[in-house]
Amino acid sequence: MTITAPAGFEAAGIAAGIKQSGNADLALVVNRGPLDAAAAVFTSNRAQANPILWSKQVIRDGVVSAIILNSGGANCFTGPQGFQVTHRTAEAVAGALGIGAGDVLVCSTGLIGDQLDGDVLEAGAIAAVAALSDEGGEDAARAIMTTDTKPKTVVVGGQGWSIGGIAKGAGMLAPGLATMLVVLTTDAVLDSAALDEALRAATRVTFDRLDSDGCMSTNDQVTLLASGASGVTPEPAEFVAALTEACRSLALQLQADAEGASHDIAIEVVGAASEDDAVEVGRSVARNNLFKAAVFGNDPNWGRVLAAIGTTTAAFDPYEVDVSMNGVRVCHAGQPDRPREEVDLTPRAVHVLIELHAGDAAATIWTNDLTHDYVHENSAYSS
Amino acid sequence: MTITAPAGFEAAGIAAGIKQSGNADLALVVNRGPLDAAAAVFTSNRAQANPILWSKQVIRDGVVSAIILNSGGANCFTGPQGFQVTHRTAEAVAGALGIGAGDVLVCSTGLIGDQLDGDVLEAGAIAAVAALSDEGGEDAARAIMTTDTKPKTVVVGGQGWSIGGIAKGAGMLAPGLATMLVVLTTDAVLDSAALDEALRAATRVTFDRLDSDGCMSTNDQVTLLASGASGVTPEPAEFVAALTEACRSLALQLQADAEGASHDIAIEVVGAASEDDAVEVGRSVARNNLFKAAVFGNDPNWGRVLAAIGTTTAAFDPYEVDVSMNGVRVCHAGQPDRPREEVDLTPRAVHVLIELHAGDAAATIWTNDLTHDYVHENSAYSS
Repeated sequence: MTITAPAGFEAAGIAAGIKQSGNADLALVVNRGPLDAAAAVFTSNRAQANPILWSKQVIRDGVVSAIILNSGGANCFTGPQGFQVTHRTAEAVAGALGIGAGDVLVCSTGLIGDQLDGDVLEAGAIAAVAALSDEGGEDAARAIMTTDTKPKTVVVGGQGWSIGGIAKGAGMLAPGLATMLVVLTTDAVLDSAALDEALRAATRVTFDRLDSDGCMSTNDQVTLLASGASGVTPEPAEFVAALTEACRSLALQLQADAEGASHDIAIEVVGAASEDDAVEVGRSVARNNLFKAAVFGNDPNWGRVLAAIGTTTAAFDPYEVDVSMNGVRVCHAGQPDRPREEVDLTPRAVHVLIELHAGDAAATIWTNDLTHDYVHENSAYSS
Repeated sequence: MTITAPAGFEAAGIAAGIKQSGNADLALVVNRGPLDAAAAVFTSNRAQANPILWSKQVIRDGVVSAIILNSGGANCFTGPQGFQVTHRTAEAVAGALGIGAGDVLVCSTGLIGDQLDGDVLEAGAIAAVAALSDEGGEDAARAIMTTDTKPKTVVVGGQGWSIGGIAKGAGMLAPGLATMLVVLTTDAVLDSAALDEALRAATRVTFDRLDSDGCMSTNDQVTLLASGASGVTPEPAEFVAALTEACRSLALQLQADAEGASHDIAIEVVGAASEDDAVEVGRSVARNNLFKAAVFGNDPNWGRVLAAIGTTTAAFDPYEVDVSMNGVRVCHAGQPDRPREEVDLTPRAVHVLIELHAGDAAATIWTNDLTHDYVHENSAYSS
């Protein structure tokens, strides 16, 4: 059910002919109300795709009735012609639904630098409206997939209300939203300001801490739509907790399906002087290719962890740091501790615990290993 | 002849038994004078190996008589015991040469987090002194190799004086010196202040612009020794030019032998508002795994270049940027230009030209592609 689990939403996922493969490539989610409140967060990449430029205008008033998402092309670095296709897509949705185009968000994902065919998008948008169903969430989840091997969905229940979500993303996973498209729906009664606050709180500790390959996308967007159809207004803290749970579930599904990955790595940094320090340290390790290649080879090469930490500005003394890998403390106070042979990195899940002994703050960054398959998939993406 | 080409230098390279393979693993370079002036630059990684901690003290007075370098172990994160091995190695060299240990630089390279055997180092140091020769430069170049497939050497001649150099480094190539050990010698008559100024000027535009895999080492050191044996004092600009030429040659040799690489990529950024901007943009592209994997697949995926530029703080408008790959302008003003099919990326040398149209500054960053062999070599390094 996913995004159509909360009351008040319809969705569709169709093959509009954007992908040469003939696979599903166009998703539509419509908020039937009674509310039409929404919030969204966008990529922090300064090179932003045309649908991002469009959607940033649409979200300004916090009113959104529909969101249309295409795979098969990012519509980025495509200039005025590309922007026109985005605009035309929104107009087609609006015309078929009898609403204003200014209430229609647009998302795109795929290869950067290729033009999309406006005729195909317009016809697809009209077909998607005709295919809307209150059980269309799964179809929508499939239609936004690119190199994803499986759809990512979530439903989290509250007291008389619920949150549903779909996500796509398998490569270019990095902050500024872990390069992905996410749609979250809820039938809770919340205005756009409350939604915005909750969405920023939830993404800050979930999607923004997923850093699969250090590459930030031009098309990231996470959208939260509220229909108010449950008639229930949850406590803010309760809603944030449920939304965070939904976002964490989707983030971990993205990690588990990252292109070519053979390990899911959680880098937990504790004893940091600040949360920012903990995030910086975790991210520096997550982006170290030598460390990531070592994990691929089941090699507990903790020296590469410390070498990565040394590139940060975080407060720490190299000769006070402890490092554990899958429960074995291999480095204590910056010196060898347990023999590295005791570490078992054969499971897919890898836990690296870094104790900085510089304070009380902590953060966990999720990443993947660097594998032959990652290289292969990304060397052949556009061909 | 390499580092023994300039008059006044002797060198040796021997198998001291540090490497289990039995390959050469200990190099020694001795300055016979009449001058004993020196300068050195070190890794900017905050996690610094014991030989770095030692050598920073030695270089303070600008007087260096010898430098000993071992492969087979980085002696990093090895605590007081590791520092004692470094100290003992310097003392052994000093004792055999009849000089003070405070005039002996020490460098180490290899796996982080393993202790070196002090007895082996001490015996090796004494044996290296016995093996000194004014034709020992090639042996020294071989003894510092780790995963290098070939020694890196250079000789640049001046008017009555010359510069020689050796370098090692094949992985962990990134700024803060491109993770490597380099020894440069000259028989020019220059004091340590002049050497320091020249060395910083030369490394800034050579080794500091080599960024093979974004990973910064804990053991980087570039050392310049002057014997004054030629009796000639070159013009400062002339010496800097020759030293820069020597450093550029060694940097490009390092790039050409980078672990597992199949392409040598020069990322030339022009039209930048400042040189710092140009370097930041070049480096962001050089560190983008998706771009690097695409080059491995001979795929001119220029969207990944622009997505990487978008993560920087450099002054630019995404819709003014031009990108050319191996001579074909595939992106003009942030939009598709020539078809990507016209780009031939099959040669090992790849030239990416980025025109920001934001000013007059420029810089070139050298990097490599991300290949199956890179992943393989670095997943198996410590095993």
